[in-house]
Amino acid sequence: MAPNSPGSKTRTVHRFSGSAAERVSDVLASEEPLEIALLHGGRRRVAAVTMRTPGRDLDLALGFLFTEGLLPTGHFAAGGAQEPGNTVELPWPVGLPLNLRPLDRHSYTSSSCGVCGKTSIDQVYQSLPFPDDAQSWSIGVQLLYTLPDRLRDAQRLFDQTGGIHAAGLFDLSGKLLHLAEDVGRHNALDKLIGHCYQLDRLPLHRSVLVLSGRASFELLQKAAMAGISCVLSVGAPSTLAVELAEDQGITLCGFVTPRSLNCYTHPERVSSNPPAAGSAPTQP
Amino acid sequence: MAPNSPGSKTRTVHRFSGSAAERVSDVLASEEPLEIALLHGGRRRVAAVTMRTPGRDLDLALGFLFTEGLLPTGHFAAGGAQEPGNTVELPWPVGLPLNLRPLDRHSYTSSSCGVCGKTSIDQVYQSLPFPDDAQSWSIGVQLLYTLPDRLRDAQRLFDQTGGIHAAGLFDLSGKLLHLAEDVGRHNALDKLIGHCYQLDRLPLHRSVLVLSGRASFELLQKAAMAGISCVLSVGAPSTLAVELAEDQGITLCGFVTPRSLNCYTHPERVSSNPPAAGSAPTQP
Repeated sequence: MAPNSPGSKTRTVHRFSGSAAERVSDVLASEEPLEIALLHGGRRRVAAVTMRTPGRDLDLALGFLFTEGLLPTGHFAAGGAQEPGNTVELPWPVGLPLNLRPLDRHSYTSSSCGVCGKTSIDQVYQSLPFPDDAQSWSIGVQLLYTLPDRLRDAQRLFDQTGGIHAAGLFDLSGKLLHLAEDVGRHNALDKLIGHCYQLDRLPLHRSVLVLSGRASFELLQKAAMAGISCVLSVGAPSTLAVELAEDQGITLCGFVTPRSLNCYTHPERVSSNPPAAGSAPTQP
Repeated sequence: MAPNSPGSKTRTVHRFSGSAAERVSDVLASEEPLEIALLHGGRRRVAAVTMRTPGRDLDLALGFLFTEGLLPTGHFAAGGAQEPGNTVELPWPVGLPLNLRPLDRHSYTSSSCGVCGKTSIDQVYQSLPFPDDAQSWSIGVQLLYTLPDRLRDAQRLFDQTGGIHAAGLFDLSGKLLHLAEDVGRHNALDKLIGHCYQLDRLPLHRSVLVLSGRASFELLQKAAMAGISCVLSVGAPSTLAVELAEDQGITLCGFVTPRSLNCYTHPERVSSNPPAAGSAPTQP
């Protein structure tokens, strides 16, 4: 396969159409493993291995480490980070404790997981760093209807593969603030949050996160960690995603089309009043 | 939320349509954590924790353990397995060595992962137990075109949520042999393979696996472990999925519609000759 950019490769494929077949070029989304390693006290500790689309690897690493509760909420200088091949190596800040215990939640070999056999999901919550400003703003439903198309339009600029997930952050006027893409949904959101983390823009209050796919528990948990309190997904949410959104004061909408959506939690932030004729969208 | 079945729950949601809003019932796909534990030598070892849709948990556990290379290829009696709450506990067979090392590939805390910084994906291959019968059969493209719709028709019987992935196994006449669903793509395939494993039906030669979503490396790896040599995905494959399929002799098709598909690897198994008028589909 011929590499185009870090994110995709071109390959000749057999295209069947009806009973005809021809050889055509197709662009594929790249998928490669990434190792996230921390340099601490003279040791190299592997924090994670994930299958991801190359590009924005430092964003991905920082977003992953922050949303998993390893990095503090303040601005973390990523100076000295190295990205040799499919790895990101982060020198751990002197004086900052390194505790990989939060990752035990993911571990396949830990002796106890703490998440199973519980009737509550409290045990799988990360501690959330940002107080919610839940009641202080609302957004018009007519604007929400437009956001998935705005995300797709922006994504089209980057994505020729048809096989990549996107996470987009919009302000309350519907302006796209940042877009991240990856074959993995969680990676796309980690890249988005890591980008904002590097720019010291957290918490992401008064903004709307739009997800190209479905909304799972882990995506909502990452959003909650970043202080996002409005999440739109093009597809369906899971039960556990809805429970977390309910508990954490997040407005969660799914099945968003240009004319309709389902609001699963905290609909008080969604205003259905049509804007006055000729007026611009209100910015709270 | 009111539980309907292990796989879904009903919730009242705010449905916005245009500038109207009403309260309606919606069915959500369940997502809950599952702990897969092995009882061995008087110890309880946690092999995996995964977020999954409840139901067919033993299938999921066996499929996961087999495709990760922990279980042998022969028939493994799952007698004595317990499923208390969100856990599956499997008594490990006496005399069978238990080696959790293959899972290090997933571990977030292992000291070296062995998959990163490599130019080859050889390091992430599981050892594949079944010799491929690659050259011995072919299937008509006209039949392949129909399979995603057949999967969706079967899925509709089970899925009211619009938010769940499916993996379906078809024989070479287009008959659905087994269907498995889950909010997680990998879980759906693990459930399918685990079901066949329990029935001692591996290897799944001379069959077609249809995936409701995109084709990633890990899905192709699981298919290869089960001896499946034809995989159709409704969406796009990733680069690494294509590389694995090429190397392992798997015919991989993507973007399958009722009239067209892209064949990424081993098109020699796909016949574009239209069937003679009035004849039934050929069964090799």
